Amino acid sequence: MARWEPGTAERLQQAALELFASRGYEQTTATEIAQSVGLTERTFFRHFADKREALFHGQERLEQAFLSGMDAAPADAGPLEIVMVALRRVATEFFPDERRARSRTRQAIIDRNAALRERELHKLATLATTVAAALRDRGVGELPAGLAAESGMTVFALSFGLWLREDEQRSLADIQADVFTELSGLTAAAARSAVDDVQQREVQR
Amino acid sequence: MARWEPGTAERLQQAALELFASRGYEQTTATEIAQSVGLTERTFFRHFADKREALFHGQERLEQAFLSGMDAAPADAGPLEIVMVALRRVATEFFPDERRARSRTRQAIIDRNAALRERELHKLATLATTVAAALRDRGVGELPAGLAAESGMTVFALSFGLWLREDEQRSLADIQADVFTELSGLTAAAARSAVDDVQQREVQR
Repeated sequence: MARWEPGTAERLQQAALELFASRGYEQTTATEIAQSVGLTERTFFRHFADKREALFHGQERLEQAFLSGMDAAPADAGPLEIVMVALRRVATEFFPDERRARSRTRQAIIDRNAALRERELHKLATLATTVAAALRDRGVGELPAGLAAESGMTVFALSFGLWLREDEQRSLADIQADVFTELSGLTAAAARSAVDDVQQREVQR
Repeated sequence: MARWEPGTAERLQQAALELFASRGYEQTTATEIAQSVGLTERTFFRHFADKREALFHGQERLEQAFLSGMDAAPADAGPLEIVMVALRRVATEFFPDERRARSRTRQAIIDRNAALRERELHKLATLATTVAAALRDRGVGELPAGLAAESGMTVFALSFGLWLREDEQRSLADIQADVFTELSGLTAAAARSAVDDVQQREVQR
């Protein structure tokens, strides 16, 4: 990303979001996005490979926020605790309540287009892979690293969906804490019944 | 899918798998797949929309297996327990050890091609959506349904990856049980540290 033109990428992104929302994603061209803020098509393509990427710009910064959030976790923290510490930091730094309206607009555009939904899915999968690799770098085994990364992304994605609802008042960080509590309750209940199962089978023998 | 020509879809699938593995996915055409088992291109396209779908045929049957597995769970089972019961059934019925070599060949083809990896990701996401909807139909709330479905798919996907390893001897069902035990340990540990955090913050006030 070019650094010598500060703010241009952000202006183009904001313009893209507005045009996608008002005219529709398919109906908007990169040229129109550029022209709406007095820039040329050529400038647009210096910043983004295509119009779709104007919606997904910032993935690297998001990944970096996850990684530095993980660095902030205590040295003795368990794998999923490390991921939850990172989630809290990402929620606070990247998704403060002032951003909620903008995130809602973006999500509505993505929800209406299958290719954009696939791209979003790919983004989350890539994020999970990055988080799992960072956990392994901290010495976490492959299986717990994969489970903690995927479970963290599940908490993140479902919490994010709740945060975007019109009637939702809680911060993303608070929603994530509540969703994690729900997940740990579900897991504990299923673990108890798995143990019951084994015991019943042993009694039957 | 045409019912009047039993076995044709399966023959084409097997031929596709062999040609993709030996010549490469990109280098193989639908016509070549059909001709290799003495059939015409036209017959191929009666069964599959394109050569990619020859690799993903069976998604509906897999979904049905998940749904009937969920029906087999006890009426008082919790959401994640229901999903784990379904996972066990799917593992036993769909992925017996005799299928391991075939599944390994298929996965190796998918791993080498970005578009196929995206398609596989999409398949798992669709499966999670189907499982979550079935849980809601049983009266499970939206959040626990989403969490149980996504966590189940995490256990399924990571277990499946382990099952395909050359050095792996356990059945898929046994791996899934072990992976779930690991997940519940991770969740319990992170839940304990979340409680410690809240208590520490309260002490500091």
